[in-house]
Amino acid sequence: MENFECIFCQKKYPLDLFFPFCPECKEPMLVSYSPKRRKFSLEKAGLEKYLDFLPLKGIDQRLNLGEGNTPLFRLNRLGEKLNLSFLLAKNETSNPTHSFKDRGSAVAVQKAVSVGISKIGTVSTGNMAASTGAYGARAGLETYVLLKEDISPEKLLSTAVYNPTLIKVKGDYGRLFSQSFSLGHKFSIYFMNSVDPFRIEGYKAAGFEIFLQLKRVAPHFIFVPLSSGGHLIGLMRAFQDLKQEGFIQEFPTFVGVQAEGCSPLAQAYAQKKSKFNRISRAETVAHSISNPDPPGGNIVLKMIYENEGLIMAVSDKEILAAQKILAEDEGLFCQPASATALAALLKLSEKSKLDVKDKIVLVITGSGLKAMKDLESFKINVHHASLSSLEEKMNSLL
Amino acid sequence: MENFECIFCQKKYPLDLFFPFCPECKEPMLVSYSPKRRKFSLEKAGLEKYLDFLPLKGIDQRLNLGEGNTPLFRLNRLGEKLNLSFLLAKNETSNPTHSFKDRGSAVAVQKAVSVGISKIGTVSTGNMAASTGAYGARAGLETYVLLKEDISPEKLLSTAVYNPTLIKVKGDYGRLFSQSFSLGHKFSIYFMNSVDPFRIEGYKAAGFEIFLQLKRVAPHFIFVPLSSGGHLIGLMRAFQDLKQEGFIQEFPTFVGVQAEGCSPLAQAYAQKKSKFNRISRAETVAHSISNPDPPGGNIVLKMIYENEGLIMAVSDKEILAAQKILAEDEGLFCQPASATALAALLKLSEKSKLDVKDKIVLVITGSGLKAMKDLESFKINVHHASLSSLEEKMNSLL
Repeated sequence: MENFECIFCQKKYPLDLFFPFCPECKEPMLVSYSPKRRKFSLEKAGLEKYLDFLPLKGIDQRLNLGEGNTPLFRLNRLGEKLNLSFLLAKNETSNPTHSFKDRGSAVAVQKAVSVGISKIGTVSTGNMAASTGAYGARAGLETYVLLKEDISPEKLLSTAVYNPTLIKVKGDYGRLFSQSFSLGHKFSIYFMNSVDPFRIEGYKAAGFEIFLQLKRVAPHFIFVPLSSGGHLIGLMRAFQDLKQEGFIQEFPTFVGVQAEGCSPLAQAYAQKKSKFNRISRAETVAHSISNPDPPGGNIVLKMIYENEGLIMAVSDKEILAAQKILAEDEGLFCQPASATALAALLKLSEKSKLDVKDKIVLVITGSGLKAMKDLESFKINVHHASLSSLEEKMNSLL
Repeated sequence: MENFECIFCQKKYPLDLFFPFCPECKEPMLVSYSPKRRKFSLEKAGLEKYLDFLPLKGIDQRLNLGEGNTPLFRLNRLGEKLNLSFLLAKNETSNPTHSFKDRGSAVAVQKAVSVGISKIGTVSTGNMAASTGAYGARAGLETYVLLKEDISPEKLLSTAVYNPTLIKVKGDYGRLFSQSFSLGHKFSIYFMNSVDPFRIEGYKAAGFEIFLQLKRVAPHFIFVPLSSGGHLIGLMRAFQDLKQEGFIQEFPTFVGVQAEGCSPLAQAYAQKKSKFNRISRAETVAHSISNPDPPGGNIVLKMIYENEGLIMAVSDKEILAAQKILAEDEGLFCQPASATALAALLKLSEKSKLDVKDKIVLVITGSGLKAMKDLESFKINVHHASLSSLEEKMNSLL
């Protein structure tokens, strides 16, 4: 039996999918489980492997899209340059809609269907909109996506293909986020937004996979792009579960990474504050992590302090340089938001906070194909030839 | 010990990575293995599982990007509509550069590095360019990509990010394909083009996965988009291997699918010809399978006849309708070329050639994100509201 729990008040409340916020302190609530011995079911496929750790009674395979089970591989050439012998990428772009969001959508949609909900929604401008659209379509649910007015045509289209009901809303995005829950309550639409507690539980699966792919060892460092906070909270909860079950002794050092142009949590962390201040204006090339008022921000701060993690900020210049390095040195093309993980690692390695033997994981959250517009300033060097001049041209280039 | 073999002359030749064509009949050659008992190594990861079936002595993990291991899942809602109880999608868009090409690039690059080659190349306008760019970058090889002059900026960019040497070549694409091999020979560049024999061996892994994911059973039908022929040849070779090793008794019915606007092989098949005629002008929305002179075409025809397969053609209208159905009914957003598989199934099911219990696999070859331009005519229905009018708007929509 699960409940919701506010990790600030430490009070429990019954599950209410339409409003997962603490009635007292207004912070997002997380799923709380009754204590029981949990184990992996590795003979099973997909989410069923982790069923003991998820707030679900079973997995309905008809709702899944083959999410998860993403590659973890060494970045050898980059590791050599940085004198790190165990630098790895967890490539979440292999998920069905090419971002980590699918892991959360998968679990939230399982929950929705299991309790008879027929309408879902989300407030998003990017990856989450497409992911929710895809899982809503797969499950045959009525799906409502509330969007910022200035969403790019490209991003709109990559959600519209799944045929959800799309509504562009004029006005403050933070207020839209709050308002979605009262509308959801009124119209029986389960808004699975960025810090939805079931979405967060879904993100745990990536943490379990990292542990299993490393042959049941926890990495020393995990770098994660940080926006609303949901993803980082989910990954940290995975390793909390692993510790609680005695699978690991040492908790990894989590490094949440924001873009300097939108870094409310990095600012609060630098000032050792327990609560962040919303920033007035966000401006960064890392659009997917550009949230001036991250709803899970205070939970992230609390968990980062308690687990001796770090929150860093990196500049757009550093982000774009890191994106280029990942593509050119390792064949990994990610969106700018994802490249913040490497940008932060480069910064930290300069300060020689890292040991050559540290196992370090960069979580690559979304595909570069999702943010082609952000590459408009990318300089392409193209040569020209005709069939008859090609040999000469190649000779000059070799 | 492997050789090359011409399946028309049935003669063997020593491996020459720079020119894998039969000296007599000029057709592409395939890898031929000395007879030995082969088995899967399922305790291993990635390509190592299939090493016995691959023309490689070992797998260098430093060259891989976590390709393969893609989901196979049921299309339940669509299957119900079509009265097919076992309709499945093999989602190759989960590969590192979001298309099936990565499986081929992975094996060809393994081969290149294992024999000390330092320069690779490809002639491509789309998926293969990006894939070769990524694997070349990963391996630290000098990579040359020869492109059509009219390649879209979007496709150019998604290859350029890996920083290969890019050359746009004016002139006939078929001649460029041929010329690349003489240039490759001259400059020691291994051109791993569409029907490269090692690339083709790489595609086999998807076939083995389908067999294993179906719990060691062969499906009755496998629908595969058909262009140069390399992919379909590779998948058929996988099931030939499975049959040869006694893993299966019945060979699946392979259905190669072309777009009507570029269907040289479907035309040859309809006329029961053993050789196809190059078509003069290709025009289809399915750009990734728009090859008027497919180099593996005659091999495909021979293998399809010998194994009682089919080659079909579908119209652009049918392709776009199928793309829409996959996204809206199943949450699967693929490029138009990939949707040909469903379009052909819909056509075949009308003719009631299929049994309700048939296990049917649609191979989804590439992500919709790779062909956003092709959706320009897609009608997006967006509603508008302000924060204060949102409730009323939603009320009207529900």
